Amino acid sequence: MSKTPIRVLVTGAAGQIAYSLIPLIGKGDVFGPDQPVILHLLDIPMCQTVLDGVVLEVTDCAYPLVHGVVATVDEAVAFKDLDAAFLVGAMPRREGMERKDLLAANVKIFASQGKALAQHSKPTVRVLVVGNPANTNALICSKFAAPKIPSSSFTAMTRLDENRARAQVALNNGVPVCGVRNVFIWGNHSSTQFPDVSNATNNGTKLPFKGHDEGLISLVQKRGAAVIAARKLSSAMSAAKAAADHMRDWFQGTNEAVSMGVISDGSKYGAPNDVIFSFPCVVDGEKKWKIVEGLSLDDFAKNRLKVTGEELLAERSEALAATGGQL
Amino acid sequence: MSKTPIRVLVTGAAGQIAYSLIPLIGKGDVFGPDQPVILHLLDIPMCQTVLDGVVLEVTDCAYPLVHGVVATVDEAVAFKDLDAAFLVGAMPRREGMERKDLLAANVKIFASQGKALAQHSKPTVRVLVVGNPANTNALICSKFAAPKIPSSSFTAMTRLDENRARAQVALNNGVPVCGVRNVFIWGNHSSTQFPDVSNATNNGTKLPFKGHDEGLISLVQKRGAAVIAARKLSSAMSAAKAAADHMRDWFQGTNEAVSMGVISDGSKYGAPNDVIFSFPCVVDGEKKWKIVEGLSLDDFAKNRLKVTGEELLAERSEALAATGGQL
Repeated sequence: MSKTPIRVLVTGAAGQIAYSLIPLIGKGDVFGPDQPVILHLLDIPMCQTVLDGVVLEVTDCAYPLVHGVVATVDEAVAFKDLDAAFLVGAMPRREGMERKDLLAANVKIFASQGKALAQHSKPTVRVLVVGNPANTNALICSKFAAPKIPSSSFTAMTRLDENRARAQVALNNGVPVCGVRNVFIWGNHSSTQFPDVSNATNNGTKLPFKGHDEGLISLVQKRGAAVIAARKLSSAMSAAKAAADHMRDWFQGTNEAVSMGVISDGSKYGAPNDVIFSFPCVVDGEKKWKIVEGLSLDDFAKNRLKVTGEELLAERSEALAATGGQL
Repeated sequence: MSKTPIRVLVTGAAGQIAYSLIPLIGKGDVFGPDQPVILHLLDIPMCQTVLDGVVLEVTDCAYPLVHGVVATVDEAVAFKDLDAAFLVGAMPRREGMERKDLLAANVKIFASQGKALAQHSKPTVRVLVVGNPANTNALICSKFAAPKIPSSSFTAMTRLDENRARAQVALNNGVPVCGVRNVFIWGNHSSTQFPDVSNATNNGTKLPFKGHDEGLISLVQKRGAAVIAARKLSSAMSAAKAAADHMRDWFQGTNEAVSMGVISDGSKYGAPNDVIFSFPCVVDGEKKWKIVEGLSLDDFAKNRLKVTGEELLAERSEALAATGGQL
């Protein structure tokens, strides 16, 4: 007896990240090899034709697990009965655009999607925000989806940063990346993020830690820009891979700690209350994440967490102001 | 004890199809979930920077099975010790380019790659040509790799056409695509190809066949153009999926018949001798394909096979002429 299909939304579905992500969902890499899915694909009206082309190709991939495709530019249709949502689409920064204009444009998108989630999706929906600024977009989205959907159901992606850092740790230690774990991203998915290799292990054994490595930290923080400089396009293959990793671990559980941007209640590691902050998390079999406790932070780390936490508070203030009193 | 890594080449590695294909190889969808790979990525010098960007992202994907990446613009490096090659890169048709100029440009590429295969790769290498005109490119490549590499080790991709046709059969019959099999592509991967649904089955049961469907045949023949019209880019996601399907079935074997462009000896189904012709094939555990025999062809089908076979003969003549007497 086959499982009931779940409904999975990808926004920005005509874009590059979605184009790399849809095959991973279709192949069963995210929700499991025996879990059928109905793909909901949302984009803005000006991308309708490209979206139609993506649907042709999804059809032509003949994925056994894809039991249906709903491609739409209508949020009410896109968010209907969702079990999972990848919120990939966001307003990109354009030349000459000021930071607060960018934030305001994204607040508009994620406020609307938060309302649509509350109105149309299942109360158990799990939401991963990929579109930047991911942490603050996730926070705004959750506030507009409350109280129907708990804030713990909104996460922001820092797994790409973690994967980038793991790969560098593997290279630096001359070991295959598959064995490298416990490399964590703290805070905001931005240039203030703190990639922390102090707990890194290889096949379960602690790797030697010779102090925080400014070179590695800077490399990870600036990796997105390096990819753009080379490809003339932003990271899509690796972003999609990380999004799939994140959602897979959330849905299927993980005993290995992984980095997830989750709601902070102010009680862990000095992170501020009421921001979406990236912590090391494990996930149980009920799709509930839990922040790993008891890791020690030295002064260097504490300072980095303070800086990235303050950035998140500033983003939150600006974003809340941009809601125009709706919150 | 883990398996020895195999060396897998993707040409046109800075391009869109490769960008969708590399993740499928990296995840183990092609060569198996326990088979490590060393990725060889080749493109032309003008694409070097983009290729560098792809390598950054492959690194950042942190694929457990990718034990190394060799990115190069040098054929001698790219073709060294290969176990498998996806020849994706080819000269695309540009506006105002005549057919014989296009053919001549590709003959140059595939003659050179055939020599490089013979000179540098393992004699057991398996080659899948995706770059168009795929059948004739594969033929030319095989001739320049002879006698070291047998012509049976060169195949052309018609699996994308098959997947497209299977999806249409599923839609037309209102059944999930996963159960639909025995939809075959005969002949050339071009507008003369013959998508044959007369043997189509669903979950092993013959589907009703009400005569060849010109609408479906035309839809499949023109599907690539429909995708380009919508996306403004050619099929990449679905082409990569099909390439992965083809190579997986070749390496891992398949009892289900699938469409593969393989060397014809003139003895099967009236196809001409010495062209790469798409037939229904099965593959044994030794990576040896075998054309399925005993299928019946009606007059409609025989005529279509004749037309596509004649096109392949014409392409071969032009291509051989373009080698300038080297063959």
